[in-house]
Amino acid sequence: MSELGKIGTYQFVTEPFHVDFTGHITLGVLGNHLLNVAGFHSHDRGFGIDRLNKEHYTWVLSRLALEMLSDLPYQYEPFTIETWVENVYRLFTDRNFAVLDKEGKPVAYARSVWAMIDTDTRKPVDLMAIHDGDIAGYICDKVCPIEKPSRIKVSSKEPAEVLPVRYSDLDINGHVNSIRYIEHILDLFPVDTLKKQRVRRFEMAYVAETLATDSMAFYIDKVEEGHYDVEVKKNLAETVCRSKVVFDDLPLAV
Amino acid sequence: MSELGKIGTYQFVTEPFHVDFTGHITLGVLGNHLLNVAGFHSHDRGFGIDRLNKEHYTWVLSRLALEMLSDLPYQYEPFTIETWVENVYRLFTDRNFAVLDKEGKPVAYARSVWAMIDTDTRKPVDLMAIHDGDIAGYICDKVCPIEKPSRIKVSSKEPAEVLPVRYSDLDINGHVNSIRYIEHILDLFPVDTLKKQRVRRFEMAYVAETLATDSMAFYIDKVEEGHYDVEVKKNLAETVCRSKVVFDDLPLAV
Repeated sequence: MSELGKIGTYQFVTEPFHVDFTGHITLGVLGNHLLNVAGFHSHDRGFGIDRLNKEHYTWVLSRLALEMLSDLPYQYEPFTIETWVENVYRLFTDRNFAVLDKEGKPVAYARSVWAMIDTDTRKPVDLMAIHDGDIAGYICDKVCPIEKPSRIKVSSKEPAEVLPVRYSDLDINGHVNSIRYIEHILDLFPVDTLKKQRVRRFEMAYVAETLATDSMAFYIDKVEEGHYDVEVKKNLAETVCRSKVVFDDLPLAV
Repeated sequence: MSELGKIGTYQFVTEPFHVDFTGHITLGVLGNHLLNVAGFHSHDRGFGIDRLNKEHYTWVLSRLALEMLSDLPYQYEPFTIETWVENVYRLFTDRNFAVLDKEGKPVAYARSVWAMIDTDTRKPVDLMAIHDGDIAGYICDKVCPIEKPSRIKVSSKEPAEVLPVRYSDLDINGHVNSIRYIEHILDLFPVDTLKKQRVRRFEMAYVAETLATDSMAFYIDKVEEGHYDVEVKKNLAETVCRSKVVFDDLPLAV
């Protein structure tokens, strides 16, 4: 077991091309930072994908839920992301995040759920069988005061939008990258809606991969005022991810 | 005049969600880094937009040209960007960039052209009248061995694509952000084309701003094999930017 603490702490500055029209960091960029710090934290503790890949394992992101308590960092503002492991089950691990503003006040929390798969068989592996179950030594009891990711079920049968997969959607594996779905889903909403309301909670459930030759169809259920469930299907058939978007009643402070 | 050197040097690491299906950093992300280091460099020398905005001035990017000498940095690889001022004219300044790989070898160069405008009148200002012409003290004779941005003229009258402006396109000013055009223009090419050929040179000429209520129409001229000129017009009418994309004959080393 390494001497490193259980909580990883990482510093950022809000870059000008990473903010939206309100001047605050976008959820896509913030999601990117969360996945990066997950990588740094696990790498520094012997569970980075560079080492795992050599052992024919890799991490797969299953769920991501973000909840905003107040405005996200503004252009040029420094901020901090903390991350820690909350639980390790046989096939999944829960990793949490806190986003702290320049004064150290939490402005958002996030929860993520990860599986490890065998890159040869593509099957999940028993986390407690990897590196003698070392991962359990990093479990931390820091509180993450937001709800766990929920089950999302979409009933709409008519896509609100169908997009071809384009070059900028693809990651190193030739799959649509996890962050790009967040951007596409936010882009389903009229700019005017996003001017009037702030996203309070955003969830992603990743189910399957989309390739360059697939299309992405977006189905939306309006569950209630300000609460939308979204399903993305490739080729109008197979579910690739589901999302929940909950807006605040409050207008956004632009 | 500050004690800082004329050449600014900035370190980066290639993040996993910032690479394309080849594993190399995307031109959009690289362009974002270039504009950021331009900001850092000018800020540290008294010409940052925070100070300029207080004086009712701001920088406006007019041209950007990138040329790749070899593969761009690969996922997780560190790299360096150098930037310096090549020329200062009355209404424009030329700022250049070198992208160095982890061994310090240049893998790309870039040129940019900037104007300063008065934020009240939106008119260009005389750069030599700002801060007693201090900016001229930063002119540096480091060589940038790529051609200057060229004139781009597109004759096609039929748009290859028309896109609405969406939330993720917009910057803090409510304009389509300069980087997003680069992504949209690359996305005009079939993924298969980008699998077979590498972009050797990419130019942008920024002419006007696109708002959330506008549409973006993309017109393409194939000038010769592997060389495309692109014009973006808002609402099928007014030019907002022009671009030149030149592919290598060589297949990309994936």
